[in-house]
Amino acid sequence: MTVPSLPTIMVEPLVRAALLEDLGRAGDITTDAVVPSDARATTALVARKAGVVAGLDCAAIAFRLIEPALKIEILRPDGSAVTAGETIATIAGLTRGILSAERVALNFLCHLSGIASAAAAIVQSIKGHRTRLVCTRKTMPGLRALQKYAVRVGGGFNHRFGLDDGVLIKDNHVAAAGGLAAAVARARAAIGHLVKIELEVDTLQQLEEALLLKVDAVLLDNMSLDDLRRAVALVGGRLVTEASGRITPETAPAVAATGVDLLSSGWLTHSVTALDIGLDWR
Amino acid sequence: MTVPSLPTIMVEPLVRAALLEDLGRAGDITTDAVVPSDARATTALVARKAGVVAGLDCAAIAFRLIEPALKIEILRPDGSAVTAGETIATIAGLTRGILSAERVALNFLCHLSGIASAAAAIVQSIKGHRTRLVCTRKTMPGLRALQKYAVRVGGGFNHRFGLDDGVLIKDNHVAAAGGLAAAVARARAAIGHLVKIELEVDTLQQLEEALLLKVDAVLLDNMSLDDLRRAVALVGGRLVTEASGRITPETAPAVAATGVDLLSSGWLTHSVTALDIGLDWR
Amino acid sequence: MTVPSLPTIMVEPLVRAALLEDLGRAGDITTDAVVPSDARATTALVARKAGVVAGLDCAAIAFRLIEPALKIEILRPDGSAVTAGETIATIAGLTRGILSAERVALNFLCHLSGIASAAAAIVQSIKGHRTRLVCTRKTMPGLRALQKYAVRVGGGFNHRFGLDDGVLIKDNHVAAAGGLAAAVARARAAIGHLVKIELEVDTLQQLEEALLLKVDAVLLDNMSLDDLRRAVALVGGRLVTEASGRITPETAPAVAATGVDLLSSGWLTHSVTALDIGLDWR
Amino acid sequence: MTVPSLPTIMVEPLVRAALLEDLGRAGDITTDAVVPSDARATTALVARKAGVVAGLDCAAIAFRLIEPALKIEILRPDGSAVTAGETIATIAGLTRGILSAERVALNFLCHLSGIASAAAAIVQSIKGHRTRLVCTRKTMPGLRALQKYAVRVGGGFNHRFGLDDGVLIKDNHVAAAGGLAAAVARARAAIGHLVKIELEVDTLQQLEEALLLKVDAVLLDNMSLDDLRRAVALVGGRLVTEASGRITPETAPAVAATGVDLLSSGWLTHSVTALDIGLDWR
Amino acid sequence: MTVPSLPTIMVEPLVRAALLEDLGRAGDITTDAVVPSDARATTALVARKAGVVAGLDCAAIAFRLIEPALKIEILRPDGSAVTAGETIATIAGLTRGILSAERVALNFLCHLSGIASAAAAIVQSIKGHRTRLVCTRKTMPGLRALQKYAVRVGGGFNHRFGLDDGVLIKDNHVAAAGGLAAAVARARAAIGHLVKIELEVDTLQQLEEALLLKVDAVLLDNMSLDDLRRAVALVGGRLVTEASGRITPETAPAVAATGVDLLSSGWLTHSVTALDIGLDWR
Amino acid sequence: MTVPSLPTIMVEPLVRAALLEDLGRAGDITTDAVVPSDARATTALVARKAGVVAGLDCAAIAFRLIEPALKIEILRPDGSAVTAGETIATIAGLTRGILSAERVALNFLCHLSGIASAAAAIVQSIKGHRTRLVCTRKTMPGLRALQKYAVRVGGGFNHRFGLDDGVLIKDNHVAAAGGLAAAVARARAAIGHLVKIELEVDTLQQLEEALLLKVDAVLLDNMSLDDLRRAVALVGGRLVTEASGRITPETAPAVAATGVDLLSSGWLTHSVTALDIGLDWR
Repeated sequence: MTVPSLPTIMVEPLVRAALLEDLGRAGDITTDAVVPSDARATTALVARKAGVVAGLDCAAIAFRLIEPALKIEILRPDGSAVTAGETIATIAGLTRGILSAERVALNFLCHLSGIASAAAAIVQSIKGHRTRLVCTRKTMPGLRALQKYAVRVGGGFNHRFGLDDGVLIKDNHVAAAGGLAAAVARARAAIGHLVKIELEVDTLQQLEEALLLKVDAVLLDNMSLDDLRRAVALVGGRLVTEASGRITPETAPAVAATGVDLLSSGWLTHSVTALDIGLDWR
Repeated sequence: MTVPSLPTIMVEPLVRAALLEDLGRAGDITTDAVVPSDARATTALVARKAGVVAGLDCAAIAFRLIEPALKIEILRPDGSAVTAGETIATIAGLTRGILSAERVALNFLCHLSGIASAAAAIVQSIKGHRTRLVCTRKTMPGLRALQKYAVRVGGGFNHRFGLDDGVLIKDNHVAAAGGLAAAVARARAAIGHLVKIELEVDTLQQLEEALLLKVDAVLLDNMSLDDLRRAVALVGGRLVTEASGRITPETAPAVAATGVDLLSSGWLTHSVTALDIGLDWR
Repeated sequence: MTVPSLPTIMVEPLVRAALLEDLGRAGDITTDAVVPSDARATTALVARKAGVVAGLDCAAIAFRLIEPALKIEILRPDGSAVTAGETIATIAGLTRGILSAERVALNFLCHLSGIASAAAAIVQSIKGHRTRLVCTRKTMPGLRALQKYAVRVGGGFNHRFGLDDGVLIKDNHVAAAGGLAAAVARARAAIGHLVKIELEVDTLQQLEEALLLKVDAVLLDNMSLDDLRRAVALVGGRLVTEASGRITPETAPAVAATGVDLLSSGWLTHSVTALDIGLDWR
Repeated sequence: MTVPSLPTIMVEPLVRAALLEDLGRAGDITTDAVVPSDARATTALVARKAGVVAGLDCAAIAFRLIEPALKIEILRPDGSAVTAGETIATIAGLTRGILSAERVALNFLCHLSGIASAAAAIVQSIKGHRTRLVCTRKTMPGLRALQKYAVRVGGGFNHRFGLDDGVLIKDNHVAAAGGLAAAVARARAAIGHLVKIELEVDTLQQLEEALLLKVDAVLLDNMSLDDLRRAVALVGGRLVTEASGRITPETAPAVAATGVDLLSSGWLTHSVTALDIGLDWR
Repeated sequence: MTVPSLPTIMVEPLVRAALLEDLGRAGDITTDAVVPSDARATTALVARKAGVVAGLDCAAIAFRLIEPALKIEILRPDGSAVTAGETIATIAGLTRGILSAERVALNFLCHLSGIASAAAAIVQSIKGHRTRLVCTRKTMPGLRALQKYAVRVGGGFNHRFGLDDGVLIKDNHVAAAGGLAAAVARARAAIGHLVKIELEVDTLQQLEEALLLKVDAVLLDNMSLDDLRRAVALVGGRLVTEASGRITPETAPAVAATGVDLLSSGWLTHSVTALDIGLDWR
Repeated sequence: MTVPSLPTIMVEPLVRAALLEDLGRAGDITTDAVVPSDARATTALVARKAGVVAGLDCAAIAFRLIEPALKIEILRPDGSAVTAGETIATIAGLTRGILSAERVALNFLCHLSGIASAAAAIVQSIKGHRTRLVCTRKTMPGLRALQKYAVRVGGGFNHRFGLDDGVLIKDNHVAAAGGLAAAVARARAAIGHLVKIELEVDTLQQLEEALLLKVDAVLLDNMSLDDLRRAVALVGGRLVTEASGRITPETAPAVAATGVDLLSSGWLTHSVTALDIGLDWR
């Protein structure tokens, strides 16, 4: 399988901004005052709970932006499933650099690993089904590229990255356009050939209309399991079916069992529980 | 009580960046294609669950940056405790503007209201105690000012905003400095007169040394309830005591009952559950 | 037909940067020294050649950023076909503001109208065919969103906006992946359900393989007209066909006559002839 | 002759912005999915048409920002006249890096080489005359420094870089000031001693007045060849004469033959035909 | 005389950055906590010492960025000579807005008025001579445009704004080029027709060579008054003479009396004494 | 003693912006034209007057951003007291790089060394007293972090870095709040436990009230020496006393002799006399 990646040029500005947010106008006044400038340390990023690692690049960039000479060794790269107590990476070098970058590095790492771990938990829960997990646009402002990367690391897939890379026609669009057919026709007249159209449908009747309109996918929003099963049968593989609405590791298997192609979860990125990872001194 | 506030000049750049992140390079292709440019709508931000509102300024700025002429009426301002189904604000005007800004507005509002609600839940759970709730530097990169604002809206207080506005000497600082006394002396020699010193102590013995050093506060990290009680007795009000370690609405009351001055919770900002708020069409 | 649009929040930063580029560190030293601060003028943006207007929003933003009180009246909005001598808009108010913003306003307007006019010329030349004109990623650095908007204004459609909103597998990707099938399979395993896959094919044999792989579109790069005809017949409407390679108003009709779905033209955006529009004093 | 140059600190931000514009929020999804992370390639930038190279620094920065370890060898540096088929530079290393940076690198290189080639063509066409070619402020928004650099590479010279580094009094300034003499006097009273004054004159009568006012240069806008000859004779070398208006390689020789000091061409930068340069796989 | 001005688009980003620097991550915690949100005040900017006002636009922008509804009345605009105790402007409205913006507004106003006052003092001291005062590139990082504006407000003139808007050949350039003649020839071969050449000369012998080279100006660096007089006589008005070296209101008259065209003073901008202006409560 | 420091990540953006401000749109046209690209030089930063060095990091970053290969050797690091004629650092390498970065490097170095020298002069003047020197928020816009760093280098201490890292209640706050007690109570109810409260008092009567309110510090603004002495006696070490108002090396000893804890000086940062440091060619 392809390991997801994000180019440094995209990640570094975010890490840089986070460091400057933390350093403020005076820098790390505790460390600068208290720690001798030549003190050295060997430390380790250690998982305190089991999960899937994501965000090591962010963490490494944070350490190196503060102290380029730090020696960073990654033992369990992004995508690794780790157990509680497992060492993910070691960082050695000047103590000041390690301490000043620690919090920002961990803020990225714990958050993104939290997302990857949640994604992996859902993916694991629906193993055996053909259903894929996808994320949404319910993301933390400014962090969408990173959060969606973490979803991929956890085995999930990405829905739209923004308003501009796919057409998703929701009920209010339909109402304003004057019906499903008009809405789809207007979209089709405007978009490029690599843009797909997904339609939100609330009833099986709307679904039948969607099938006639030959859209690429339908969003079955908050449907009952029974209706989902009926929808899947009705579609018969002619377009992609996406079920949404409170998808968690607990609820996912039943929804996947209806045969839908996709489960979409906003919870994955809007209500993240950070994975507990700490920096241990050796 | 003073209602917290953040100046627009600090908030707007974050909202602007989030909108541009969502609009990408082509803008809202669905709405632009499907919704007539003169269609108008009246909508309402409605709480789907009970909680405390925070972030209405962000939401309003998002709507107005996309469509300055939208009419926004705020019924339940930041800090209001709302019930499920309650209308928080109404937004009326051109449909395109409402639809294109909706997701970004909600991403801020649901996240910040999630934090305010969690803070309020802990504050409520320790009512009757003199203990205050404080947040940490375990925040989302780039969003610290907003998250800490939401903590205040929820009735909590703010710990350090960064590495530069307070001295917090942790165990690794102490080790590098060669002892508590050396660490505190070095800090005192460097800092300004409005900067306080807090010391992390792991044992009651260290606490006694901290009292002799006359620091402003001690961080009692992951101590047992018994040790916390002993610590509070030992301190006798001579400095501020802060208890940290997995503070949630469930665990908070017992910790507060030990008499510590502060409970600090990273969970508040690093593992936020968004408050479910939606935009309803009227 | 839907009129294309770009939100002000996306356009203004580019105009602002262009004005600052022109004002440098001392501002408009000629106008400030020479023109009385209360002088007023009425001026008109006038087409010196026939073409299609695009970029009036940029121009208006430029004038208003320098002098908010200027009165701007748009007579021929974006998308209008104008003749030589036709007045596009009038700008009236303080002379200083008009003169200081003039060049930047015209730089946007003439460039984007040049693109729209070129697109319209090709679109006109292939009228009657079902073929659509699309642009490429061969754009001016920093101006892609604006240039692609101008293509839409001229009646063209947009290909990918970047490396991230569509899969386009070219010969070098195929070589590195070890064949068409492997390349497509790898892509399919990684992408979201709203992302389409287009494959560059150089021969009819490759095209047959592409059809088996059920990709969404094929790029028929620099094929002869005969081969294009054969390719269209072979495909039989099962996927989208795109012909590329030196598409201009002169060459387009013959290529469109082969029946391909799309003509893609880098020339549209990388070798733009500005439409001559001037500011006349009245 | 001095080879023009631009410091990296000025160029890199533009290249960085262009790469981020192309990478969007998900990066190069095709290459990341399809190309093995350890695949390597040797490639060459090859001119498909004859011209003058400009922008190799931009191209090299683009490749290195994506993949610092790429080995780039420049065979024909900026300013070289190349023939169709000639190799300009070689780039070797990880395939992913080459593919992800290719388009942005070429967008800079082909555009700037297009300008340098056009400038060189005009310069060549007026060889033997003492006339110099100069560019204008009719540039692509945000790219003025680069475009003007390319003009220098092609053997041309730069007119004003902005509104602030020279006084150019045009007809509308004169009208607002109440005459040539008043306009020049006002300018002279305001500017520093290193700032020159150029005056647009439309008639020989105005030219005589300009001579009396002892300005540094006159812009002879859209004058007939006869009038240009008369103007040059009248001036007799007492100030710099600049002829403007539709200067191209075809029209330039006749204008240069009038004896004017400068030909200024907006066409050079506002209507650039990109030089066709491709990246060949070896 | 023309009143200097700077467009808002150039000034606002600097004021905005200064406000954000002051507000940090928590805003004005004193004012927000202590001052009722509906408290109103009438205040006045009052000169505590005599001087020349500069920077009122910056101050007004600062107040308005914090509180758009503040009513600001300017009594003594930029360029006014004020006496101690004189009211420069009044600001009325919400107390919070006034207090939160006060320091930043004053920081700009006092600094720029300090420059304007110093410039005016020198200009006054050399009244009657034909000599002009000019500033240098010895400016505060990031504030050059504002500082040079303040010099103009005080009656001085601007030397180069940067390395790019004039040629100034200093002794080290000459040494590297291999002599005055070579240096000037190289410069002349490279620059545009609106760029002037100034040459630093240390001896009268060099000055004679400069006259032969027909440069536009000479910088007579740290010459004795006698040598300056001789230099002026030697030049006989054929080029602009600039004297530099520790020009202050005390030393200026004697230097001006030598007949040089320009006195240049780095002191004006690198060692500014702020003009004492305060905000009084009414 | 701890040597102050600022992380590169905080300093570099300011230096980069200053270089771009100086390079403008065409770069260093003199050096590029006149100095051969392979010329090399050895130069030295030499103090022309005695003082305390600050800002060598800024200077080194400026040189390296222009020419990474320059060899920079620092002989007298930040904090060193140097005499007139003493060499601070040597810079060797390509002449072009040295010349193009020189002015910006010196602008930082001379300004910050000016601050450090002034701070050191005051600190020296009050040696023997227990009084500390502190700076204020009267700083150059955008340069606060650097200026406050220079104060530390000179032996001074930092007051607030902004409106957000300490409560300073001034007379107008008190008036708006309705009295000292109300103001302090409101502040205390809002702030975190690491934030101190300082109160401006104008009379000894107010000071008594401040003592009852147990604030952390009092600002004794513009009090006579007699009143300062009385205030110090009244306080008796129960809180920190700060005297402000026209503190210079001349006035400081008398004020320090009153026994106050702090002297605060706006003059230190708002009216800086640059330390004269030059770049000598060897």
